[in-house]
Amino acid sequence: MSVLIVGSVALDDIKTPFAEHKNLLGGSASYGAVAASFFSPVRMVGVVGEDFPEEHMELLKKRGIDLGGLQKAAGRTFRWSGVYGPDWNSRETLSVELNVFETFRPELPDDYRRSPVVLLANIAPDLQHMVLDQAEKPGFTIADTMDLWINIARERLVELLARVDMLILNDSEAKELAGESNLVRAGHKLQAMGPRYVAVKKGEHGCLLFGDGGEFFACPAFPLEDVHDPTGAGDTFAGALAGTVAAGGGPVDFALLRKAVVRGSVLASFNVEAFSLERVKTLTADDLDARLEAFRRLTTFE
Amino acid sequence: MSVLIVGSVALDDIKTPFAEHKNLLGGSASYGAVAASFFSPVRMVGVVGEDFPEEHMELLKKRGIDLGGLQKAAGRTFRWSGVYGPDWNSRETLSVELNVFETFRPELPDDYRRSPVVLLANIAPDLQHMVLDQAEKPGFTIADTMDLWINIARERLVELLARVDMLILNDSEAKELAGESNLVRAGHKLQAMGPRYVAVKKGEHGCLLFGDGGEFFACPAFPLEDVHDPTGAGDTFAGALAGTVAAGGGPVDFALLRKAVVRGSVLASFNVEAFSLERVKTLTADDLDARLEAFRRLTTFE
Repeated sequence: MSVLIVGSVALDDIKTPFAEHKNLLGGSASYGAVAASFFSPVRMVGVVGEDFPEEHMELLKKRGIDLGGLQKAAGRTFRWSGVYGPDWNSRETLSVELNVFETFRPELPDDYRRSPVVLLANIAPDLQHMVLDQAEKPGFTIADTMDLWINIARERLVELLARVDMLILNDSEAKELAGESNLVRAGHKLQAMGPRYVAVKKGEHGCLLFGDGGEFFACPAFPLEDVHDPTGAGDTFAGALAGTVAAGGGPVDFALLRKAVVRGSVLASFNVEAFSLERVKTLTADDLDARLEAFRRLTTFE
Repeated sequence: MSVLIVGSVALDDIKTPFAEHKNLLGGSASYGAVAASFFSPVRMVGVVGEDFPEEHMELLKKRGIDLGGLQKAAGRTFRWSGVYGPDWNSRETLSVELNVFETFRPELPDDYRRSPVVLLANIAPDLQHMVLDQAEKPGFTIADTMDLWINIARERLVELLARVDMLILNDSEAKELAGESNLVRAGHKLQAMGPRYVAVKKGEHGCLLFGDGGEFFACPAFPLEDVHDPTGAGDTFAGALAGTVAAGGGPVDFALLRKAVVRGSVLASFNVEAFSLERVKTLTADDLDARLEAFRRLTTFE
């Protein structure tokens, strides 16, 4: 089955303690779609400007992503620039230029409306609502979000929770949105607000998945000696997760979501090993299998 | 096989956001010995004062702990008093009275000298060295430590690393001691300083175990809605780990240590559910088995 992914497409300028790169392919839809494409067919909805480099478009095409929903608008592409601190713990946004994203309204081509799995990648809740307004009874809907929307669009985000099957956010965001300092209670509160499943990302500490009847799945992050650029790790996680759900081909249960969370963590671990999509774009099936096997060794016990 | 545990025995006054209790049984040896006793015979070395309550002694005896190495000295028992902040993230020490601990020198009874497994629970590195000076070729030696010793006794601690098979410490301590901000690199640096295995405790995020040849085991913490007192969680983890290693009855390999880390996490998860040893002392084999089974569900994936 295919997955519909709606989100941002960006050109990023990123500075880390070790390097600096400009005009990188970024945005939640780009990372999400490329990650999902390792597992299932992908339909992508977003917007780029006239300055969007052909090489970035080629990368998306090479991954077999259906770009029928990617609008090309007059003006410049959405741009983001940020800098990471020495421990990767702090990220400072230096500048944001909305450009063509300012007036972006997601439009689902007719053949996208019936998408069995929908990933509302990290964008404004208003835009996420617009996608659900156009979709025809998706089998499984996943929403990713971030602290920005909790701060400036909480009401619309809370309304969205009632419309989705799964919510993805990080641990501080979960506590903030639920108004609860214990993470387990926060996750359960969020489930009570709508989504049957909640995936809480904890960066280098992995992910905690909340299921039915108090069930949990704890997935570690793959231990890495070298992190080169954490940008897009969360988007990559969400994309691989959604792609795995779509690849399941049928009803979604907790066993499939466990599997999906592991694939999300594996893809995210590759993503942070290089700037932008540089590592993920060269990923082979063998690379993936080897790290999945390492993940098994990482978590197995008697 | 039995495990020899050396550490502190304390009377704790603890205040949390929800409650306050005084004269609680505390100390690294108390928590460690009780936790280990669920898995193997335990020999305990430490010191108490004349004020040490009979009920605490009874608890240790009830768990079948060999108290032949527990000295009773003139004066008052070591006392610690602390307060936890609202998120459990900050702990402030209000007072420390060394009392009989000030002049404590661990003395191993003759029949303790040949202990196949030795746990140097969290005490000053000087005292940990004294134990190793008296022990006769233990099969497996584990040292627990804390930030205090890294700050005031770094040299002796570094010397100790060359004498032990396994080091246990938390993530910020590992980074501090190794002088390295990436946790994976920090763990490998610590291994290069002596211990073949390093267990890095990450509180609510679980534990990362470093093995031979770059091997890892990532163990989650059991997700808990209610934490009542995190005091002694690390000591409990170390004790249950050491007890499981002793129960292995022979050479220690990574498979046994994976098992031991899980038992450590499980016991620690019970420990934080009540003040002092209140929860752990009532623990049954069924309680243990049920949470071990929950741990399996927590980490299983396809």
